[in-house]
Amino acid sequence: MANYPIVERLLAGDRRALARIVTLIENNAPEARPILAQLHTHGGHAHIVGLTGSPGAGKSTLVMQLARELRRREQRIGIIAVDPSSPFSGGAILGDRIRMQELAGDPNVFIRSMASRGSLGGLATATRDAVRALDAAGFDTILIETVGAGQAEVEIVRAAQTVIVVTVPGMGDDIQAIKAGILEIADIFVVNKADRPGADQTAAELRMLLSLDEQRKERAWRVPIVKTSAASGEGVPELADKLAAHLASLRETGQLGSRSGRQARSEMLALLHQALLDKIAATISTEDWNRLIDEVVERQTDPYSAAGEIARRIGLAAAQEQD
Amino acid sequence: MANYPIVERLLAGDRRALARIVTLIENNAPEARPILAQLHTHGGHAHIVGLTGSPGAGKSTLVMQLARELRRREQRIGIIAVDPSSPFSGGAILGDRIRMQELAGDPNVFIRSMASRGSLGGLATATRDAVRALDAAGFDTILIETVGAGQAEVEIVRAAQTVIVVTVPGMGDDIQAIKAGILEIADIFVVNKADRPGADQTAAELRMLLSLDEQRKERAWRVPIVKTSAASGEGVPELADKLAAHLASLRETGQLGSRSGRQARSEMLALLHQALLDKIAATISTEDWNRLIDEVVERQTDPYSAAGEIARRIGLAAAQEQD
Repeated sequence: MANYPIVERLLAGDRRALARIVTLIENNAPEARPILAQLHTHGGHAHIVGLTGSPGAGKSTLVMQLARELRRREQRIGIIAVDPSSPFSGGAILGDRIRMQELAGDPNVFIRSMASRGSLGGLATATRDAVRALDAAGFDTILIETVGAGQAEVEIVRAAQTVIVVTVPGMGDDIQAIKAGILEIADIFVVNKADRPGADQTAAELRMLLSLDEQRKERAWRVPIVKTSAASGEGVPELADKLAAHLASLRETGQLGSRSGRQARSEMLALLHQALLDKIAATISTEDWNRLIDEVVERQTDPYSAAGEIARRIGLAAAQEQD
Repeated sequence: MANYPIVERLLAGDRRALARIVTLIENNAPEARPILAQLHTHGGHAHIVGLTGSPGAGKSTLVMQLARELRRREQRIGIIAVDPSSPFSGGAILGDRIRMQELAGDPNVFIRSMASRGSLGGLATATRDAVRALDAAGFDTILIETVGAGQAEVEIVRAAQTVIVVTVPGMGDDIQAIKAGILEIADIFVVNKADRPGADQTAAELRMLLSLDEQRKERAWRVPIVKTSAASGEGVPELADKLAAHLASLRETGQLGSRSGRQARSEMLALLHQALLDKIAATISTEDWNRLIDEVVERQTDPYSAAGEIARRIGLAAAQEQD
């Protein structure tokens, strides 16, 4: 099947075509899906890196420094800044974008911020799709940066191949950073602002917490803790080295393939779950749905019968239940 | 519709009928569902309380003391001990059951342990269904106790009306306790083993963490922090008072109804999601499913087309996509 013209332009390196596609994704435009389907078959070459951590940990500056370092290594870099807490894109991170001006003028760097227009699931899907577009466009490393470090952010960075969790010296922030299961998803820890007092202690505490994680013990990859000062750029080359080392480890142990398989499986189930919700929305009126919920709460019916009624009406009931 | 004989026996107070039904639930027996459908319409009277917190926080002893205190208040008590980390029920918690002998001889107390036989979702469903059976059997308070404090436990206690998070003096345990979004779900905090040094400091740290939670500020209920010594029973009457106060607050603010509505909605969506997975399993062979995943990973197809193919084969595709 021939590619869409906009896909051909993106593959030829046209930044405006890429920007236009990301906008279609952000707006959840129906025409995005066939485009994304074509883009998918052209991707699979980028190293996808997620960065999360408490607000104020200096992630934006770190991302900028990391992008600079990777540019020195002749890589083309895509950056997606995601803010699940804000319905506006570009607002709070406008300052960062100005600071990123140096990078933004570089044709080998593409920066885009994305914000929550609807549900969290929608933002996670939009981010994954934007990564798909940047991957097809040939960027070597794609950095996904989240504003905060909550459940939403965990969901978003889970789509990455390498997850960096950024923290800073001081206990309060550590507690924030390890909330919401973040400890479990980290492939690399960064103690940023390491020129501040307490950096070594924070690194030691993280090492201790990691040693308590039983599941880690079975893994080949030992999570490194890298101390950086994003302001001065100290530690950033080491972080870039660790990124490359993690990717190599994923490849050597065959985990890159199994992670891709898990992610594909999880994306397909999410698409099918969305198809289920779409079918419910198209078939069952809000009044009917709310009436059923009320009847369950008031004990006039039970959840199994109520769900069974909906399953029958959307054609999902198993054969024996349709009799 | 007439009730099943076993339902009639349960409603008449027959403990063996209740035990039999909980076993059917645990075994995921197909005959459990119509029984549960009938039980649902007889419930809605119990106060459902979830207890979670780090292993070693003394939850089992606390549950025993709390049950004793509620018995003094003439309540009938159901206790479900849930262990998502173990495929065996009754094993690790057998010691607790022996300690609970005093309660177990009381006809107004029903104790049951449940463990993970399959998926986490399965255990959460089984726990919710066991609560449904105990509720219909007329227990005034149902205590759901989890062994650990991970994402699985959060999922399980989310079905409760009141969530108690148990911690002990000392920072390491605090960090464990507030992991995985546990801070957000607590209605009552307990600092157990409060005779140990550092109890006041732990309480102060929790108070500080709670004050950082922006969403809390809009709520009528201010999370109390109760210091207990489960060994001596100190603080347990106050905890029982707070339980009653939380239930009263839920009723006064209308939140009991909105929580029930949210839980019914979430249960119906879970049942429909399960119906989707059942339909996929009944229609698509494992070979076909794995082949599709492989083709997505190998970029021979894209996830939208692969999910669309499955949606069509299970009859879920929207009308325009079926052309």
